[in-house]
Amino acid sequence: MAATAAPTSTSVTDLALAAKAAARRLATVDSTTKNAALVAIADALEARAPEILAANAQDLAAGRESGLSDALMDRLRLDEARIRGIADGARAIAALPDPVGEVVDGGRLYNGLEVRKVRVPLGVIAVVYEARPNVTIDAAALCLKSGNAILLRGSSSATHSNAVLARIASEAAYGAGLPEGCLALVAGGGREELTELAQLEGIVDLMIPRGGEGLKKAISAVARVPVIYAAAGNCHVYVDAAADLAMAERIVVNAKVQRPGVCNAAETLLVHSAVAADFLPGALAALREQGVELRGDERVREIDPAVAPASESDWGEEYLALVLAVRVVDSYEEAIDHVNRYGTGHSEAIVTNDRTAARAFQLGIDAACIYVNASTRFTDGGEFGMGAEIGNSTQKLHARGPIGLRELCSTRYLVDGDGQVRG
Amino acid sequence: MAATAAPTSTSVTDLALAAKAAARRLATVDSTTKNAALVAIADALEARAPEILAANAQDLAAGRESGLSDALMDRLRLDEARIRGIADGARAIAALPDPVGEVVDGGRLYNGLEVRKVRVPLGVIAVVYEARPNVTIDAAALCLKSGNAILLRGSSSATHSNAVLARIASEAAYGAGLPEGCLALVAGGGREELTELAQLEGIVDLMIPRGGEGLKKAISAVARVPVIYAAAGNCHVYVDAAADLAMAERIVVNAKVQRPGVCNAAETLLVHSAVAADFLPGALAALREQGVELRGDERVREIDPAVAPASESDWGEEYLALVLAVRVVDSYEEAIDHVNRYGTGHSEAIVTNDRTAARAFQLGIDAACIYVNASTRFTDGGEFGMGAEIGNSTQKLHARGPIGLRELCSTRYLVDGDGQVRG
Repeated sequence: MAATAAPTSTSVTDLALAAKAAARRLATVDSTTKNAALVAIADALEARAPEILAANAQDLAAGRESGLSDALMDRLRLDEARIRGIADGARAIAALPDPVGEVVDGGRLYNGLEVRKVRVPLGVIAVVYEARPNVTIDAAALCLKSGNAILLRGSSSATHSNAVLARIASEAAYGAGLPEGCLALVAGGGREELTELAQLEGIVDLMIPRGGEGLKKAISAVARVPVIYAAAGNCHVYVDAAADLAMAERIVVNAKVQRPGVCNAAETLLVHSAVAADFLPGALAALREQGVELRGDERVREIDPAVAPASESDWGEEYLALVLAVRVVDSYEEAIDHVNRYGTGHSEAIVTNDRTAARAFQLGIDAACIYVNASTRFTDGGEFGMGAEIGNSTQKLHARGPIGLRELCSTRYLVDGDGQVRG
Repeated sequence: MAATAAPTSTSVTDLALAAKAAARRLATVDSTTKNAALVAIADALEARAPEILAANAQDLAAGRESGLSDALMDRLRLDEARIRGIADGARAIAALPDPVGEVVDGGRLYNGLEVRKVRVPLGVIAVVYEARPNVTIDAAALCLKSGNAILLRGSSSATHSNAVLARIASEAAYGAGLPEGCLALVAGGGREELTELAQLEGIVDLMIPRGGEGLKKAISAVARVPVIYAAAGNCHVYVDAAADLAMAERIVVNAKVQRPGVCNAAETLLVHSAVAADFLPGALAALREQGVELRGDERVREIDPAVAPASESDWGEEYLALVLAVRVVDSYEEAIDHVNRYGTGHSEAIVTNDRTAARAFQLGIDAACIYVNASTRFTDGGEFGMGAEIGNSTQKLHARGPIGLRELCSTRYLVDGDGQVRG
């Protein structure tokens, strides 16, 4: 049974065709069976933890030999607690409402036809990811719950860990009644397999790359299937003239330092000139205390000469680190223009008590999530009550913001009549 | 004022950048102003009909000289009644609800943050179309109403007609308060302009080609912007063992002959073997009476030897003409398999009084619209109560089925707090 999940000599196309066939059946599987399968996966992961840890030890040994960085080694490492965390994640997804079959819209037409627009699975989703082996299970649970077959393609550094995780998960899923072939790991870490996968038009319904810019470029150069890229985030916090300055400081510190390596962390602070002299000394001190390196424009450096000068490239950069660009602006309009010019359309925040400024900011900025008086760090499927997410999208088509269970679905119109013909 | 709309030497990229700037402002224009602009366009078209007819006469003369077919000449031709029809179409779109600002979802999070998922315009939409000049106004009205700037690129055969229509429309729109640059016609019928337009990543938010397979191929070869292709439709009507046979005959005749040249017309008839001998003689006679050429499998030809033999390629063909492929199947499962194998995922119908068969068909078929006891011909934005459409999509991402005002939009999360930071 594990043959389709473990790395074998089966070609990518064969795996994908099997996934396509499985997807047709999976689309009609009821929620109870899907949920039971996710719980079975969780139980099997905990029960078979020693197998997982043994495989992970192989990857860790290979990683040490090839000189992986400490950060990558940490991402790669599994232990009992992390396995429990992965299993609990699958159980949490089992507990979420099933998106499949939701009636999104509907009504009776002039001629008596009854129309329902219902949510249906996309079909086959390919998830391409880097170091972290937990993505194997997180992504599988989200795809299976939303009725989609999943093709996983992890990085070569996690080959053994991913293989055993996928094998355990597929055995548990098939044992619980999901169709064979609905969860498969693509063997081989080469670019050829990635290209083959990315060009399976009509078989792979969606590809989701989870990784850095290198992976994104590699895929966009060859992809013929629909792709949603997990987003880069050059996020801004704008402190308006009418801001509560204590709140503003809490928000900018949180947005910058609470987890600087993620896409919804702030990279630039904009401050209205009317409050810059009051706000910046305290806020910049608080940021420095947290280890933040500051780069400011001339007006910021007039207030605090210890701030390094920012260059034009700083406004466009996603540092993903404890670095913050800081600029003084003369109006909320100027802040909006700056954000629309340099932002990546991810998450943007204004701190203000002025309704007009808040409204203009939310109307005028073209981004997935626009906050008033809150940290940008809330852009997250879990925080938004979607239960879990497979990434964040800054695309405008199909999914914008957190990609949760609903975003992994399409819709279909079901139309019921009693003989209607068009006149 | 007409400079941006009429064919000039302005480059495609310049027009698109102007459209992008206009789109930012258009996104915040209220419904009243947008509706007034559409009515002003309609009024101006009627008032300036002589200019339109003069330009159209130039295109018709050129068409005659270059030997355009009668069908293409008819598509190209405008007259007073057609202009009135185009104007009424714009007025009808003005009367539809504004999709922009609709709250699609929302709620209060655990920490008091209030989240609204609201519909927003996509930004800049490029519509590429062939012969019919009416598309200039239909597409413009849909895009402007949904708050999007529009770049139009028509065919060279309609150069003069499209230019005057776009000029009149943009003058009326700007006069009514819409931002200049929000409606522009790309001059030049060459492939270079099309390629330039299709590669304006980050400027053009969506391209919609309306035309045949040649146009589709030309665009898919070069496009880097998101594209939604108007769909091909290889649609089926399946007459189940439990069908009301009189109803089935009405439905299949309507689906085939009411307008054979469109994507939601039926191309294949599937009949359950239990009713084939009862159903086919009458139904095939009725189809022949309407001029339909029939191509059947062996079992059909046993019942009616006058039916021409179908070859494998018939099952996959979109005739767009008075031709119908006919096949006998032994179960609804076999019908479902046939449709999933050969269909294009557009519109599929089952005629049956058996709830189990109907349910299996609607659950088991992967298509945009699945009908029980009704003609496939209803797949249409107007029929579905969406008011109007810019085409039909068989893609699974973003828009599936008729592409109406809502489908020309994206969404944004607006999040309101009072100082929330992430713990």
